[in-house]
Amino acid sequence: MTELGEAVVTDDEDLEGLYGLTEDLVRETLAAIGAQDRVRLRTLTEPLHAADMADLFQALSARNRVLLGNYLGEDLEPEVFVHLDEAVREDLIEELDPDALARVVTGLDVDDAVELIEELEEADQQELLDNVPPVDRALYEEALGYPEDSAGRLMRREYAAVPSVWDVGQTIDYMRDDPDVPDAFYGFFVVGPDYKPLGVVMTSRLLRAQRAVPVTDIIEPELRLIPATMDQEDVAFLFRQYGLVEAPVVDEDGRIIGVITVDDVVDVIHEEHEEDLLKLSGVGVDDLYEAVVDTLKSRLSWLCLNLLTAILASVVIGFFQAEIEKVVALAVLMPIVASMGGNAGTQTLTVSVRALAMKELTPSNALRIIGKEVLVGGINGMVFAVLMGAVAYFWFSDLLIGLVIGVAMIVNLLIAGLAGILIPLRSTGPEATRLSDRASF
Amino acid sequence: MTELGEAVVTDDEDLEGLYGLTEDLVRETLAAIGAQDRVRLRTLTEPLHAADMADLFQALSARNRVLLGNYLGEDLEPEVFVHLDEAVREDLIEELDPDALARVVTGLDVDDAVELIEELEEADQQELLDNVPPVDRALYEEALGYPEDSAGRLMRREYAAVPSVWDVGQTIDYMRDDPDVPDAFYGFFVVGPDYKPLGVVMTSRLLRAQRAVPVTDIIEPELRLIPATMDQEDVAFLFRQYGLVEAPVVDEDGRIIGVITVDDVVDVIHEEHEEDLLKLSGVGVDDLYEAVVDTLKSRLSWLCLNLLTAILASVVIGFFQAEIEKVVALAVLMPIVASMGGNAGTQTLTVSVRALAMKELTPSNALRIIGKEVLVGGINGMVFAVLMGAVAYFWFSDLLIGLVIGVAMIVNLLIAGLAGILIPLRSTGPEATRLSDRASF
Repeated sequence: MTELGEAVVTDDEDLEGLYGLTEDLVRETLAAIGAQDRVRLRTLTEPLHAADMADLFQALSARNRVLLGNYLGEDLEPEVFVHLDEAVREDLIEELDPDALARVVTGLDVDDAVELIEELEEADQQELLDNVPPVDRALYEEALGYPEDSAGRLMRREYAAVPSVWDVGQTIDYMRDDPDVPDAFYGFFVVGPDYKPLGVVMTSRLLRAQRAVPVTDIIEPELRLIPATMDQEDVAFLFRQYGLVEAPVVDEDGRIIGVITVDDVVDVIHEEHEEDLLKLSGVGVDDLYEAVVDTLKSRLSWLCLNLLTAILASVVIGFFQAEIEKVVALAVLMPIVASMGGNAGTQTLTVSVRALAMKELTPSNALRIIGKEVLVGGINGMVFAVLMGAVAYFWFSDLLIGLVIGVAMIVNLLIAGLAGILIPLRSTGPEATRLSDRASF
Repeated sequence: MTELGEAVVTDDEDLEGLYGLTEDLVRETLAAIGAQDRVRLRTLTEPLHAADMADLFQALSARNRVLLGNYLGEDLEPEVFVHLDEAVREDLIEELDPDALARVVTGLDVDDAVELIEELEEADQQELLDNVPPVDRALYEEALGYPEDSAGRLMRREYAAVPSVWDVGQTIDYMRDDPDVPDAFYGFFVVGPDYKPLGVVMTSRLLRAQRAVPVTDIIEPELRLIPATMDQEDVAFLFRQYGLVEAPVVDEDGRIIGVITVDDVVDVIHEEHEEDLLKLSGVGVDDLYEAVVDTLKSRLSWLCLNLLTAILASVVIGFFQAEIEKVVALAVLMPIVASMGGNAGTQTLTVSVRALAMKELTPSNALRIIGKEVLVGGINGMVFAVLMGAVAYFWFSDLLIGLVIGVAMIVNLLIAGLAGILIPLRSTGPEATRLSDRASF
């Protein structure tokens, strides 16, 4: 599949030739699981990329996943675990005995290994750490010392660096011959005598420069030092904002301790966006693969909250039972106003949540944008007031009903717009807090 | 700001030192605009990265944006336009005379230039193309020949490639000395005699290999050829799935014509996610910066649709006016059931939209996931049936009301769950269509 010359060009509308997992493969895998045919399973899955293999697991039912995992045994690449969604990964890891788990973890890069370890329960973590070689254990414990979702957990520990006093020739000779230099890197760092990074050099520039040129002359203009404790969301922001390809991670003294590359950041950007969706609907990220009971739990809490607010609204309606009994048209028209307010509020909420995540909603433009939402809400309210007022008037041949619904629509859409922007601004997310702190400027 | 050694390490909670745009800078810029102080404006904005400069524009009101653009004139880097949101970019481009626009466009890479050109009206496009040198014009017209949002528009035209018969030594000598090789690249391609790419080589591997080794021996295992007509969303999927850093773009005969790198893909991933949000709430991507009238237009259409469905629901309620007059409790409790159904439906919708975008919802697991949603909806329905039934019973001291509300809740949450997964599955998005085509397997 990944061998030289085997790649094929496929039609635009069709990823089949480029994406390793096909419907046929899923069906054949299912058949082989049913027939308990281990040899066939190995032949089928051997050419798969780890990411496609993970997708294959996710296309199966929970029972078949465990069977496939068991049948493959040690033939299952550790890399596959990195690509699995959290819920599925947990299921498969539960099936592994301590030795098998240690084999999987030590087969991974430190950053990926730590991602697996941090999901384990306290006791399982300890058991695993006791089960791996001391060298690995030290690396994992060091990485686990950084806060969850921080640059220190995300970074790779292998990087190439040269002193700033070298020229291009010295650097090329060192890179070609020294066994300590990693085989694969996009660029390398130029560091001062205290290991503080002074810049990044793209390897191609090194190749293209004259041997006598000082290495500091071919440094990329963009240097952003990432503190090891920085939240990965901020790391992703910096990479996106400045189009970074790689950035050095530094300790509190500013010394280089690792590197983050843009392909690590792609995953973080995804997690971030999923959090945005979560904020908008109360649905967990791994929802698709979670067991029914876990999905129920995560969704119930959100729905319970919604139930409370809905009951609150109904209590208010309850105060006007006598009026509704007299003018039943109100009961008929009321849900329209409520539904419009709900949708207008969600629209504003979507815009604000996204703008906060992109750091586009700032103290200097918050007031202007709140003003805009009020204006949009007000105008929308008037448009729908006229529309619904007319509908109500002709439906129930009652001018007063038309007026009441019209006014209700304006008030409702105005408040929906304001709530949609003010609530996320005042919510407790890290950016939001920072923002509202600074909003006092 | 970007000069050697000036980078500073800041506190975790604070991006201020790493992110170029500060509240102070916005305020000082506003003051300088007010004072019409061009010199001061240039001093303030000169050290800014193009992306930060774009953020500065976006933090200003529409009027001040235009003023700042005018005051800076030719000092405004073309790159800034690439980083602006579409709505803001349009506003600023409208202010430019044809010569200034031609200067901006020709100052950009072809892929970025085409992004600007494709947003212009037909007549303005023609005027611009007449205004640029013929060499550039030919490049732009060729790029515009590819479908919108395709790999052909996204790719860069500068790449390094060597024939597959060379060894490492020949390649190094060529890379070092030939003026045709671009200065900056992460890796280069090994091509057959017909210019068909056989593989990618990371530049660091070239540096680390012995001179006599054939260049085909140090090829990366991962080779995915991107057809020039492939949709950028599929490109982003391949990069994410296989952790690609760069991939060759090929024409219909499989010959290499360009390269896409992961940093280009980061922007595509963003656009994709914004489309997801859009699908969930009917809000446009550039909403935050759009003029009030544009925001109104884009939100009104969605709200109008919602108005129609809400009126439809009310018409149904209208059939039961006589019943409501008799049992006014129904009018009080009805909105609770409707609201719960709406929220449960949105939860399922969020999960399905995301799963479709990630290609995680496939024909082989669609039935299983639909089954799960039915189960979750049914159980949620029963839980809330009991809860709301009890509330209704105690509130109105009427067992029948409790039963009616309970049954309504079960039916409502079941249907909400089903609709939330079936509607996106059957919708007309490209993935969805492909999926439902294949669902007949």
